[in-house]
Amino acid sequence: MDSERSLLLTDLYQLTMLQGYFARGMHDTAVFELFVRKLRPGRNFLVAAGIEPLVEFLEQARFSADEIDWLRASGRFSVEFLDWLADWRFTGDVEAMPEGTIFFPNEPVVRITAPLPQAQLIESRLINLLNFQTLIASKAVRSVLVAPGKTLVDFGLRRAHGAEAGVLAARSAWLTGFSGTATVLAGQRYGIPLYGTMAHSYIQAHDDEMEAFRDFARAQPANVVLLIDTYDTEAAAHKVVALAKELEPEGIRIQGVRIDSGDLGELARRVRRILDEGGLQRTIVFASGDLDEYRVRELLAQGAPIDGFGIGTKLDTSADVPYLDCAYKLEEYAGKPRRKRSAGKATWPGRKQVWRRYDAQGRMAGDVVGLAHEAQEGEPLLVPVMRGGRRLDTLAGLRAAREHAAAQLSTLPQPLRALEDAPPYPVEISGELQALAARLDAEAH
Amino acid sequence: MDSERSLLLTDLYQLTMLQGYFARGMHDTAVFELFVRKLRPGRNFLVAAGIEPLVEFLEQARFSADEIDWLRASGRFSVEFLDWLADWRFTGDVEAMPEGTIFFPNEPVVRITAPLPQAQLIESRLINLLNFQTLIASKAVRSVLVAPGKTLVDFGLRRAHGAEAGVLAARSAWLTGFSGTATVLAGQRYGIPLYGTMAHSYIQAHDDEMEAFRDFARAQPANVVLLIDTYDTEAAAHKVVALAKELEPEGIRIQGVRIDSGDLGELARRVRRILDEGGLQRTIVFASGDLDEYRVRELLAQGAPIDGFGIGTKLDTSADVPYLDCAYKLEEYAGKPRRKRSAGKATWPGRKQVWRRYDAQGRMAGDVVGLAHEAQEGEPLLVPVMRGGRRLDTLAGLRAAREHAAAQLSTLPQPLRALEDAPPYPVEISGELQALAARLDAEAH
Repeated sequence: MDSERSLLLTDLYQLTMLQGYFARGMHDTAVFELFVRKLRPGRNFLVAAGIEPLVEFLEQARFSADEIDWLRASGRFSVEFLDWLADWRFTGDVEAMPEGTIFFPNEPVVRITAPLPQAQLIESRLINLLNFQTLIASKAVRSVLVAPGKTLVDFGLRRAHGAEAGVLAARSAWLTGFSGTATVLAGQRYGIPLYGTMAHSYIQAHDDEMEAFRDFARAQPANVVLLIDTYDTEAAAHKVVALAKELEPEGIRIQGVRIDSGDLGELARRVRRILDEGGLQRTIVFASGDLDEYRVRELLAQGAPIDGFGIGTKLDTSADVPYLDCAYKLEEYAGKPRRKRSAGKATWPGRKQVWRRYDAQGRMAGDVVGLAHEAQEGEPLLVPVMRGGRRLDTLAGLRAAREHAAAQLSTLPQPLRALEDAPPYPVEISGELQALAARLDAEAH
Repeated sequence: MDSERSLLLTDLYQLTMLQGYFARGMHDTAVFELFVRKLRPGRNFLVAAGIEPLVEFLEQARFSADEIDWLRASGRFSVEFLDWLADWRFTGDVEAMPEGTIFFPNEPVVRITAPLPQAQLIESRLINLLNFQTLIASKAVRSVLVAPGKTLVDFGLRRAHGAEAGVLAARSAWLTGFSGTATVLAGQRYGIPLYGTMAHSYIQAHDDEMEAFRDFARAQPANVVLLIDTYDTEAAAHKVVALAKELEPEGIRIQGVRIDSGDLGELARRVRRILDEGGLQRTIVFASGDLDEYRVRELLAQGAPIDGFGIGTKLDTSADVPYLDCAYKLEEYAGKPRRKRSAGKATWPGRKQVWRRYDAQGRMAGDVVGLAHEAQEGEPLLVPVMRGGRRLDTLAGLRAAREHAAAQLSTLPQPLRALEDAPPYPVEISGELQALAARLDAEAH
């Protein structure tokens, strides 16, 4: 079975714990929440992503007969337990921040309310899906912030960590404001706009660069972007000017050129001049090669005449911060709030909500994390997305999530828009929640 | 279709280039090679991994009818081209370093020899598979080097970048000498030994820690490893001693304890003492929580009495170095060697081989990269693994690859075994290859 859908994509301990719960009949309602413990250096906020793919996973999650047979053959599990496991379904409730929501440490992003063996078994895949997609959304948005009005394209598939990472990175990037991706499967699966032209191998496979340009333009006359750095970038730009004149009678226009190596800022200036002097003012300059938000900001600050950027490896791996300090923790079981007290990893107990206040200009002014039943002021960020194992209409698709992300960014306070660490955004723990934690600690001693 | 098998898991430019090749009838034989440009800081060598999964991908790669329909609906491609694409198969040859082989920059790891449109289309997925698996093997081996004789377990699924990354990271880690993984699907798919016990939520779902331990031990009497840091680690260790006495008459033995937070070295010492004084000398201490090879080395240097380590996030994301500077480049087309000369990204042309020499003690003494037809001394590292699109028996499975990796490590010179940068291992470019590159450059001017 496809690894993206398999319930065996889990940690062994989920299954051994489930056998323990099964043996003791521990099927009461559990509440787990996913949150991030702290921001890593260079991140001032996070962008929630991956909720709809998670819900799709939960809706179809079940063990195949082959998988049950394989578990039986392992000798680790009882016959009764495996019979029960064969009927395992997720029938719980899910509340979540809508994809594209800006959030901060200690704020629950997703809350699962389900019989304990359901909420437990999904842990590994839930974190696996949400950690990665939120990580990439929170990385991609930084390029969006530094390059307003520019065309930003995800180029990262080849160095993304496997198949699913390539597709979901494209999704997270588009969600936060990228223009599109080069990854065809992301286009097919999610309707994300596709970008792409040619590689160096295309030029090299021809005996002559000009011949390669000409062939390519005639083969895809609607989408002519030529890669000009295989040999000598400026010489290639002159060839582009000559080719444009040659192809004009055929009605073919050269839409852009791409530069993928060397001093991108300086080369872009020289190429722009050659194109302009050759009458190709409308031909855009696209840059790629080892880019990230820092390099894009630097190029734009230098005034480099670059219209679009292909951002690849460092985006799809979130290279400077390749994981989140996130956790999925039991906060309540059988009606009782629970608290983990491990050194440095203590949790806020109970089922929680996050409320956000805004200032007079509509900017985010502060969040409160409290117990879900509290009557706090502000906008509650967690909304129901699944009831009894079925998705709700609150999940409105990727395009709506992209619009939500853009609206969220418009409310982001100026200091948090920087690439460098800003003073922390205020996130308050409600008095009632603090009192609950203190009471649980006191009861334990 | 499953994204791991889909040919749409590619960059759009592969398809636009293919349409260009198709339009011009460019179906001559191309030779592409994958290599790493340079080592990133803190890496003295790399371990080849991912070859067999690549070959499995190539054997089954084709477009489904649905995918062709979707491409047709995109309006980007001609009817003739799509008809031809529907019959696309990989019928080429592959040479590769056996999985587990140690290698260095500028050495081809995989060579593809196939009609140009075949060798081109597979580029994105080939890099996607090999970059990640080699990355993780080259990370995992560092823990193997610093912790000989210890049990090392991959715990990284939840923060691996998606489904495939979780499974393939487990595979790469086991290949290089890890004892096993927590990821069940990796056990099912590859026969990798599975490890795992309980999470904090299991303890928290019970009203009492001792009751949780007791239930767990009775539910899985063959595999009792108890997590003791949920509340107070030393108090929990005393409970383990008491429980061991209680369960002895039932024939249940407590095999180990796991510590997942706090000062792992100091806690391990205290817990070891409590267990020993309680007569549990055979109960092992297992540590986890934010570990990597540096932290493992440090704990062992302090003499921490830890028998096994669960290494997760930093392994499965290769957190300090989350990608390789690898490239897949056209080296020959239609019988002519090709050379890319882009600034900082020039390639060595022609179809190549790597030969390795050993010293009298059997240690690696130096490599030569030359043209495949040269008669160099030493062991040739690239071997045929696929002919005419069919796998060869040289692919002997993951267990054989693991043995090969162990044998390779035994030949690794001492300085390269360090976690810090060592003087570079000698990799020479043959005179004939240098002459070819010079000739191509001269012809281009």
